[in-house]
Amino acid sequence: MSNFVYPFLGLCFLALSIPSIAQDRPRELGVKFGILPAGQLNAITDVSGVKVGHFTKNQGEHIRTGVTAILPHGDNVFQQKVPAAVFVGNGFGKLAGTTQVMELGNLESPIILTNTLSVAAGIEGVVKYTLEQKGNESVQSVNAVVGETNDGYLNDIRGMHISAEEVIQAIESAESGPVDEGNVGAGTGTICFGWKGGIGTSSRKLPEELGGFTVGVLVQSNFGGNLQISGVPVGEKLGKYPFKDALEKSDGSCMIVIATDAPVLDRNLERMAKRALMGLAKTGGIASNGSGDYVIAFSTNQDLRIPYSENEDLFFRELPNSKMTPLFMAVIEATEEAIINSLFAAEEMTGKEGRIVPNLPVKTILPWLIDEKK
Amino acid sequence: MSNFVYPFLGLCFLALSIPSIAQDRPRELGVKFGILPAGQLNAITDVSGVKVGHFTKNQGEHIRTGVTAILPHGDNVFQQKVPAAVFVGNGFGKLAGTTQVMELGNLESPIILTNTLSVAAGIEGVVKYTLEQKGNESVQSVNAVVGETNDGYLNDIRGMHISAEEVIQAIESAESGPVDEGNVGAGTGTICFGWKGGIGTSSRKLPEELGGFTVGVLVQSNFGGNLQISGVPVGEKLGKYPFKDALEKSDGSCMIVIATDAPVLDRNLERMAKRALMGLAKTGGIASNGSGDYVIAFSTNQDLRIPYSENEDLFFRELPNSKMTPLFMAVIEATEEAIINSLFAAEEMTGKEGRIVPNLPVKTILPWLIDEKK
Amino acid sequence: MSNFVYPFLGLCFLALSIPSIAQDRPRELGVKFGILPAGQLNAITDVSGVKVGHFTKNQGEHIRTGVTAILPHGDNVFQQKVPAAVFVGNGFGKLAGTTQVMELGNLESPIILTNTLSVAAGIEGVVKYTLEQKGNESVQSVNAVVGETNDGYLNDIRGMHISAEEVIQAIESAESGPVDEGNVGAGTGTICFGWKGGIGTSSRKLPEELGGFTVGVLVQSNFGGNLQISGVPVGEKLGKYPFKDALEKSDGSCMIVIATDAPVLDRNLERMAKRALMGLAKTGGIASNGSGDYVIAFSTNQDLRIPYSENEDLFFRELPNSKMTPLFMAVIEATEEAIINSLFAAEEMTGKEGRIVPNLPVKTILPWLIDEKK
Amino acid sequence: MSNFVYPFLGLCFLALSIPSIAQDRPRELGVKFGILPAGQLNAITDVSGVKVGHFTKNQGEHIRTGVTAILPHGDNVFQQKVPAAVFVGNGFGKLAGTTQVMELGNLESPIILTNTLSVAAGIEGVVKYTLEQKGNESVQSVNAVVGETNDGYLNDIRGMHISAEEVIQAIESAESGPVDEGNVGAGTGTICFGWKGGIGTSSRKLPEELGGFTVGVLVQSNFGGNLQISGVPVGEKLGKYPFKDALEKSDGSCMIVIATDAPVLDRNLERMAKRALMGLAKTGGIASNGSGDYVIAFSTNQDLRIPYSENEDLFFRELPNSKMTPLFMAVIEATEEAIINSLFAAEEMTGKEGRIVPNLPVKTILPWLIDEKK
Repeated sequence: MSNFVYPFLGLCFLALSIPSIAQDRPRELGVKFGILPAGQLNAITDVSGVKVGHFTKNQGEHIRTGVTAILPHGDNVFQQKVPAAVFVGNGFGKLAGTTQVMELGNLESPIILTNTLSVAAGIEGVVKYTLEQKGNESVQSVNAVVGETNDGYLNDIRGMHISAEEVIQAIESAESGPVDEGNVGAGTGTICFGWKGGIGTSSRKLPEELGGFTVGVLVQSNFGGNLQISGVPVGEKLGKYPFKDALEKSDGSCMIVIATDAPVLDRNLERMAKRALMGLAKTGGIASNGSGDYVIAFSTNQDLRIPYSENEDLFFRELPNSKMTPLFMAVIEATEEAIINSLFAAEEMTGKEGRIVPNLPVKTILPWLIDEKK
Repeated sequence: MSNFVYPFLGLCFLALSIPSIAQDRPRELGVKFGILPAGQLNAITDVSGVKVGHFTKNQGEHIRTGVTAILPHGDNVFQQKVPAAVFVGNGFGKLAGTTQVMELGNLESPIILTNTLSVAAGIEGVVKYTLEQKGNESVQSVNAVVGETNDGYLNDIRGMHISAEEVIQAIESAESGPVDEGNVGAGTGTICFGWKGGIGTSSRKLPEELGGFTVGVLVQSNFGGNLQISGVPVGEKLGKYPFKDALEKSDGSCMIVIATDAPVLDRNLERMAKRALMGLAKTGGIASNGSGDYVIAFSTNQDLRIPYSENEDLFFRELPNSKMTPLFMAVIEATEEAIINSLFAAEEMTGKEGRIVPNLPVKTILPWLIDEKK
Repeated sequence: MSNFVYPFLGLCFLALSIPSIAQDRPRELGVKFGILPAGQLNAITDVSGVKVGHFTKNQGEHIRTGVTAILPHGDNVFQQKVPAAVFVGNGFGKLAGTTQVMELGNLESPIILTNTLSVAAGIEGVVKYTLEQKGNESVQSVNAVVGETNDGYLNDIRGMHISAEEVIQAIESAESGPVDEGNVGAGTGTICFGWKGGIGTSSRKLPEELGGFTVGVLVQSNFGGNLQISGVPVGEKLGKYPFKDALEKSDGSCMIVIATDAPVLDRNLERMAKRALMGLAKTGGIASNGSGDYVIAFSTNQDLRIPYSENEDLFFRELPNSKMTPLFMAVIEATEEAIINSLFAAEEMTGKEGRIVPNLPVKTILPWLIDEKK
Repeated sequence: MSNFVYPFLGLCFLALSIPSIAQDRPRELGVKFGILPAGQLNAITDVSGVKVGHFTKNQGEHIRTGVTAILPHGDNVFQQKVPAAVFVGNGFGKLAGTTQVMELGNLESPIILTNTLSVAAGIEGVVKYTLEQKGNESVQSVNAVVGETNDGYLNDIRGMHISAEEVIQAIESAESGPVDEGNVGAGTGTICFGWKGGIGTSSRKLPEELGGFTVGVLVQSNFGGNLQISGVPVGEKLGKYPFKDALEKSDGSCMIVIATDAPVLDRNLERMAKRALMGLAKTGGIASNGSGDYVIAFSTNQDLRIPYSENEDLFFRELPNSKMTPLFMAVIEATEEAIINSLFAAEEMTGKEGRIVPNLPVKTILPWLIDEKK
């Protein structure tokens, strides 16, 4: 359970029981992202069954890191695999598990996000968690999907402060419902466009005539570029853009997780994953050389579960290619919004060696986003 | 302001009186695209040595098609191959030559763009052209790179009205200098965001401290999505966006050609190519299911020429990975601008079965693009 | 045109008159390939519905080329697409249609094999054939899958002697039943391991307990390496092996087509395709730099047909990953045998400039293949 | 002659003087593999600078596992990266580090092989080792390349008995010179074609006229299929082949590491890596569904070192594509031989739950391999 303290609790938005957003989310403030309607929570958990858990490690002066776990459903994922795909936007990163997902077209573990040097802990945690799950007593192979971004500016990353046990904590704390954003979990120490980044999430619910499906996105934002919000060149207006500002190094990474309840197998999930980079582009991201931009997409559709005991033929309902376009658009829109959500939610952070990363100055920019767009 | 003279005007190629560029280019009108400076012509031909030729076939009531040829240099390309790469954004298209470029990392022919059902003519033209070039008397294999988009709404595409000879004409008419945009060559009959699309081009010249290299982009725009120009949601403002407007079918394709003089081999050229889709995303493109979105990138750098007679080892200077980021950004910006340039240049077109595709209402939207952005 | 007689004439299958096949097929001569049983015809046409047509152009002194067409079924393939995949073993070749097959996971045209410089004719033929098929009156886009190998040693390849009409002839002559091998169709002028190559085919029928499915393979053999037949180092014994013999240039290509009736979608078809190179390896092929080694695999399974009008969701039965291994093995074995079959069937050929390519000396080698293996 | 000592000699962990090869290597026994000459040691360490270290954990009744480390050179690999590539033969495996190698074209760490559930330990070991290397004090990102196969039949794999420290031991024990084969390091508990598998290695030295380069291969053999040695169907003769024998499950994996001193960058290294599967095919491997068949290739060529501080442009000498064929052939031959070497070297092993995996009955089969081949 997430008993960590939110950095923005000072704003006192959400004390405890209230649904948890300390700063308003851009959509609620009037910022517009695309034309498709968001889901109820505007979160990846709008996709039924998906659970998210954060383990935040904000300790002492130098530890600013954490773990975020995304579960495709509440059952035993190893026994009930889901169709999945990975797209590598820019591969300067260490996403474990990629090749098996690509080969077999499925996901058999929770997805873990953490810091670059804690991927080993992520894998160890997933493996131990899976081996000990009921029903997995004879399992001898687990494909742990563990992504990362580098929080080493604020976090003592060389200290490798995440343990397998903490990864398991993140998994076990995963819940459906609202998702914490900003400086939580794997987003605790990240930087985005020179501002404090973090976890962000968003969703789209297609109109019934376009299939009625839900697409949810969760990002760990830690990259750079020429920040643009809802089309407004915020980076330029604030004077923080590539090759200009010291903190805006452009480098860094973005992990993106996509969930959908649409009946889509691996090939079309990969196509959806590919569109996430287009959403990232709309925020001004440039997938710089040093970026590890990875997208993992999966379908929670009940009819597409892939039992571990693959003795029986699979009977599928699948969307034809021709019905994919609205889902592509949903991915683009939700990815863009999830990234911006991460920026709005993240608060200023002081970390390793006294370094300070400021939050995006929402009050300053909000008029640009609202007024200018009519 | 585009007061440059079109290369073929002297050649009296297309009827003289047709004002092929009715509209000024957006940059000259004050629309802003990114932060990097454009090259002198703001065209792919800013990359030294690159030549572009159009063959426009606008005949009778039903033929609205053509060919655009891009030559990496003025020498015999088969004998002096250039490093090259292809990225498939969405592969609902017929780009010929892809796998050999990927395998060998080079380009050995002019790049041809045309309509979907004329790829055969494109290949035949390139093969014949190459076989007959001086020095190629013993050549028995030619990898023709021929891309296409579908102009079948305005053009009698089933008539297959392009011949190999016309392809050769496009190649032989290729010149350096300013590049015609809009309803020319392979862009004669295309549609983009529900408006008349066509050929567009743009470039970026990196500051010396970022390497000083030039990146040029040429597009054949024929796709859809939620049009956004310089961040402004023009599609929404005009009421023409996906799932709303009949002409804005979202489907369709975009061929993108990237040239650079930077010393970059195939792997980093592929990374550059990948970023073009991010530029496309910034115009609101969604790479719909029916889209054939392909990017071909090549380097004209003299030190990287690959002689056909590969008897000697190659001695290369190559940029390290760490210097690629500015080139990525240049691709994103130039692709976005090239697409918008194609829309500004294209004029209303009446074609097959009397169908009319209107041009983008520049006068209407220009105030939004200028005023709103301060 | 191929009026030769089938090797299994002993079985009195096709009789008629001209005994055009001088050599029996290796299996009938006692050569052993693997452990899985062959299908009835030991041909790709053992997969129900598959048709093969050859157009052989053996004219005058210099023309030694042709076309081979493989149809996945007898219906309108454009309207009733089949799941398909492509694997690129070595991409020094011009396989048209690759990227769309990869993106959409299906095949919508006959597969054409021909010579390197006639790919354009192949595409033009397929497009015209498709446009004119009943039911395709409104079709405006056709993904022609056209592979090639280079027969320029024996054939006046620069003459581009194949026309679109001849391609259509190959398509229209396609039949189920026995398949001509050797110097026919696209194999008319090819060379393999320094001997005359050509078309070869083979199949495997899985035992019922492994699924009972059939896998058929057809090859256009035109490559080199260190020839090994059923494990015997025939190349070395005959003194014809890489870097030793003038004709054994190692270079050249192999097109491989795989059909199966197993319910397998694109991802697992790609995996099957990948195994074909392993079968090629067992013949001593080395996929040299100059090789265009491509594999196209498709499923004819009725339940997996993909209607052009993709309005409805698709309901599939699909084999789980865990049942793929026997199919992989079938591909390996049938590919190996198909290549060797092409060598046994091909006869000495005199072609361009009086060049002679001898046939594999079957009588010499047969004792090695039979006796030594016990 | 290999007078190196085998670790498994009675648990007598690395006793120096004991002449530890229980079985001679096949080449010395007269078995022939291809036409290219082997290097001096017939080992991956024939490539100058390459070092191999094993950590063997053969403890008690249930632990039969280990670690094998391959170092491209003796300097700081992170600071002096080498060009590298990965090819995924069949991706049912967990090779960590794949995507970064693919993206950046280089290797920055030792390559670690271990068991499936110890990949986390492998990564942790590499990361800690790298962070603590002199000169790496400010490093915050390490791309650990860690492959695995599943030794869970003989080894208590669920016990996760490998620690990061043991991984570091393997790295630090790495040496040039002869390489232990069979039941050592990551090969301690593996099974191949139903017999005891393990570590195997081989090399080829090209004749000067083909470039004079060396190619070395090391495998961790743990897969199945229809065993064929030097062309002889040993599996069939011994009655142990797929779908027949209980132990010959076909499943399992093969990790393959390729080193060369040829000046070859990532693209051509990937092409070399692809050929390793062709060598595997010649042993009868079928890359079954459950197989994790991965190939990692790197060049040790001094002129291609990639310094971490990528401030300067890189000046390369590179082989042209046209000179790659002999290197491809070397990979195929050395991979085939390395796998067979692993089988000849491995001895019968009793492990978890008293399970026994016999060694290949060399005495029985040797006459087949020698006599039958002339």
